[in-house]
Amino acid sequence: MTHDTKLDLVLERKIDLPVAPLWACWTRPELLKQWFCPLPWRVTEAEMDLRPGGIFSTLMRGPDGEEHPNVGCFLEVVTERRLVFTDAMLPGFRPAREAFMTGIVVFEPNGSGTHYRAAALHATAEAREKHEAMGFHEGWGKATDQLVALARSL
Amino acid sequence: MTHDTKLDLVLERKIDLPVAPLWACWTRPELLKQWFCPLPWRVTEAEMDLRPGGIFSTLMRGPDGEEHPNVGCFLEVVTERRLVFTDAMLPGFRPAREAFMTGIVVFEPNGSGTHYRAAALHATAEAREKHEAMGFHEGWGKATDQLVALARSL
Repeated sequence: MTHDTKLDLVLERKIDLPVAPLWACWTRPELLKQWFCPLPWRVTEAEMDLRPGGIFSTLMRGPDGEEHPNVGCFLEVVTERRLVFTDAMLPGFRPAREAFMTGIVVFEPNGSGTHYRAAALHATAEAREKHEAMGFHEGWGKATDQLVALARSL
Repeated sequence: MTHDTKLDLVLERKIDLPVAPLWACWTRPELLKQWFCPLPWRVTEAEMDLRPGGIFSTLMRGPDGEEHPNVGCFLEVVTERRLVFTDAMLPGFRPAREAFMTGIVVFEPNGSGTHYRAAALHATAEAREKHEAMGFHEGWGKATDQLVALARSL
């Protein structure tokens, strides 16, 4: 997977856990809800149908009751290896009215651990810059800390 | 496959040919170019990488030299059964700047023939109406006549 530095944002980390618990945290809604948003935001609802065209929907709630619903679909599901999803398409592959990003998460076994890489692909450099200004690196970093802590506890 | 009549346009036809030659006409660029546009428009260039996220690109040329490039990607490729593609995403699943439609083509064996169904899914009722006004029914109908004639000649 190569990325276009003008359009993509990438988080890469070597994690000292095998792929299985990380995959579980990414693909089981009751686990996803526990780490997917950096606190104090929380995911309060999550729906996942793990197949191409299947729904991936979350509701994020802020500390003051703000609500950010997000609905999209999965594009590729390769168990314990690769997960691709987007908000550019609704379930059943219908084009969405507005697109923000495609997410590509790759889990590569690395000895007893995992080489983990999560990328956000955007349509334009402006969308990438907006995402970076929204706090991509800090937000995805904190969420990944939460992911690792949860996976370690399983 | 059920459709939303406010958002989708559907062409359905029983064709007295087996699936194989129809599938070939849809998936081999040198064949696709011969039928995909209703004459006098022609597809002069076609690139297809038949896997999820793989390129589906065509260049349509009009009788007065007009050019309509279209680039998107495949979303599902089930040999001789189902082909899904969109212009809402570029190759590699990057969101496109603008989305017009997702195409879903289903080939169902029906005795010695094929029950053929091609649907265009849009994001909004306005996009669907625009596509209908552009001549969806006549255009896709004529192209399908060309598809059947070419498949019969193989």
